[in-house]
Amino acid sequence: MGELFSMGGLREMMAEGEESFQVTPWKVEGKVDYDRLIELFGTSRLEGPVLERLTRLLGGELPPSLRRGIYYSHRDLPWILDEYEKGNRFFLYTGRGPSGDLHLGHLLPFELCSFLQRRLGVDLWIQITDDEKFLFKRDVSLEETYRLGMENLYDLLAPGFDPRKVHILFDTRSIRLLYPIALEVARRVTFSTARAVFGFTPENNIGSIFYTALQSAPAFLPSQAAKRKIPCLIPCGIDQDPHFRVTRDVAEPLGYPKPALLHNMLIPGLLGTGKMSSSSDAREGAIYLNDSPQDVKRKLSNAFTGGRATVAEQRKLGAIPEICSIWALWRSRFAEKDEEFEGITQQCRSGGLLCGECKARLIPKVQKHLEEHAKAREAVKSWAESAIVEQL
Amino acid sequence: MGELFSMGGLREMMAEGEESFQVTPWKVEGKVDYDRLIELFGTSRLEGPVLERLTRLLGGELPPSLRRGIYYSHRDLPWILDEYEKGNRFFLYTGRGPSGDLHLGHLLPFELCSFLQRRLGVDLWIQITDDEKFLFKRDVSLEETYRLGMENLYDLLAPGFDPRKVHILFDTRSIRLLYPIALEVARRVTFSTARAVFGFTPENNIGSIFYTALQSAPAFLPSQAAKRKIPCLIPCGIDQDPHFRVTRDVAEPLGYPKPALLHNMLIPGLLGTGKMSSSSDAREGAIYLNDSPQDVKRKLSNAFTGGRATVAEQRKLGAIPEICSIWALWRSRFAEKDEEFEGITQQCRSGGLLCGECKARLIPKVQKHLEEHAKAREAVKSWAESAIVEQL
Repeated sequence: MGELFSMGGLREMMAEGEESFQVTPWKVEGKVDYDRLIELFGTSRLEGPVLERLTRLLGGELPPSLRRGIYYSHRDLPWILDEYEKGNRFFLYTGRGPSGDLHLGHLLPFELCSFLQRRLGVDLWIQITDDEKFLFKRDVSLEETYRLGMENLYDLLAPGFDPRKVHILFDTRSIRLLYPIALEVARRVTFSTARAVFGFTPENNIGSIFYTALQSAPAFLPSQAAKRKIPCLIPCGIDQDPHFRVTRDVAEPLGYPKPALLHNMLIPGLLGTGKMSSSSDAREGAIYLNDSPQDVKRKLSNAFTGGRATVAEQRKLGAIPEICSIWALWRSRFAEKDEEFEGITQQCRSGGLLCGECKARLIPKVQKHLEEHAKAREAVKSWAESAIVEQL
Repeated sequence: MGELFSMGGLREMMAEGEESFQVTPWKVEGKVDYDRLIELFGTSRLEGPVLERLTRLLGGELPPSLRRGIYYSHRDLPWILDEYEKGNRFFLYTGRGPSGDLHLGHLLPFELCSFLQRRLGVDLWIQITDDEKFLFKRDVSLEETYRLGMENLYDLLAPGFDPRKVHILFDTRSIRLLYPIALEVARRVTFSTARAVFGFTPENNIGSIFYTALQSAPAFLPSQAAKRKIPCLIPCGIDQDPHFRVTRDVAEPLGYPKPALLHNMLIPGLLGTGKMSSSSDAREGAIYLNDSPQDVKRKLSNAFTGGRATVAEQRKLGAIPEICSIWALWRSRFAEKDEEFEGITQQCRSGGLLCGECKARLIPKVQKHLEEHAKAREAVKSWAESAIVEQL
């Protein structure tokens, strides 16, 4: 299992004096060093020739998340592009473990999928893992994870898709399709391997240990159904990579192609640490998709920035965009044009743009974005249900 | 988890000098001491007042397997009878992990269920665990376990059932019904517990570890569907008890009644050791349901008995029925009347009945039984498929 390495042992692998952090599909702790993750996970940096090749293939300007290094890592992207150019079209696969209200960060993979589908016309398979959420949280019912899954789905579809090319696998509803493939995966993954990849202990429940097999299944389902090898491209947060290392390791023995991946960084929280969290305590730490204009104004006004202690100091020394949660939002999507983004970055660094003014510029853009999102969310309700696939 | 004990540690629990044996759902090794299993598993002996009470309730003579101690152990049978007498009817649940051809021993629980259904009119739920067989054998495909499951099903239904009262849960087909309940079970069972009950090691695959949750699900499904607590009685081989200890431990926290159990001994192999095995090497060690009359004659003629080395010695000392594989067949069902069974036993012990003569008497009875089985097996094909439950 060449690509696998121990998450449990991640701390041990880091050099003496390195700041400690942890990234698993269920927990992100400490200040994530994304460059170090590329080394630790053994992925490839998304830059240079491969990024240029992707740009040429997509035939036009890339979205901010691709242009500005938020999608910063990949596995086997050149292979996916080779196959595409040979006429062997890939499909997209991404997903979501249902939770309470979603925030801006949750939409990143779906926005990228929306863009790729518009440009290339490819199919998208979305997995809603209500079983996962149930298994990893003691205090939630299956009825509740199901309900949250349906609510989340409307948000996830809002970035805009071709309804004829969206296939939703809702785990407890689509299980008859997923289970046989999950069995094939599960037979090839020992507890020993799962423990090494995810850091499981004997106190983990037997469902949580099996679950990763379910998350592999959508990567193989279209190939199984079509009885030919269809390449799969998975845009996801880098925290999901451990699951797909398992998927990739079992793919070829099972006769499926290894899925390729595009990894995004996690959007930093507004309060300055870790990724945006959707746990209710941290509600102030992220912009939620159903936040009111007042919420947006309050949260962004209170957000952590890279500014200095006084105006005078900031005018003199400039601020530090790289640690600023507001700058991260400009970067991710709110400065659409590169000139605008570069202007903001430069003014920030030079001390010409104070944090208050920068926030005041961003607030209406975020408010408008949420307003448009809400409309798009309502519109997808007419077809979301019919995109759920229970049998082929 | 009060009832659970370590299968891995079974050997350690046995007294110094005790002959070692092992009983798990996937492996039976050594000479099984059934009395000792009652102590080790913590079950109750099926005898005395509870057996008399069962006889009264069933209103007539019990089948040989109940009268003669082949069903020899139980859990909570008095409670099931209490509930029944209060008007809260139980349902029966039993099952089968698909394998190649079945032998006589595999039908014991189904024959008991057939009898109980005829006498009490109760419903029967049958689980066919094609997923289990796939997960626990490396060299079989899902298509093959599915095919074997369908073939086995006809055999299992041959003892005779009311088609309106038989509900078949075929794991890969009925998974949408089973999976949500399996998730509820799985969330309450840690790897640590599963390891203790089944003796798992880190090399077990993650599907095999999860699987027990699937085997619990049918015990709860009728209660879940009816939204009231319906008692469940599970006739099964004692080797399946570990699964149902898990089921019983999670039942009440999930709001379901603990299933009661009736355990049968495993029919000894014709070659003198262990239970009848269905692995192909051991084909000579059991009477298979599709054996030809010639097969039956050859196998029984060669079978291990409790006889002596010479005729003279046997006439003088008598034979030992308790260790005889032929006597076990008379006992299980082929001597229907108790007088006949007692006659054979007594003549055997006294040296009046030689093994050759005893075998010659048994052979046509077994041949006739298999002939009738084959007819019944053909007849159930008309309705077996329609009894498979994929949704409620």
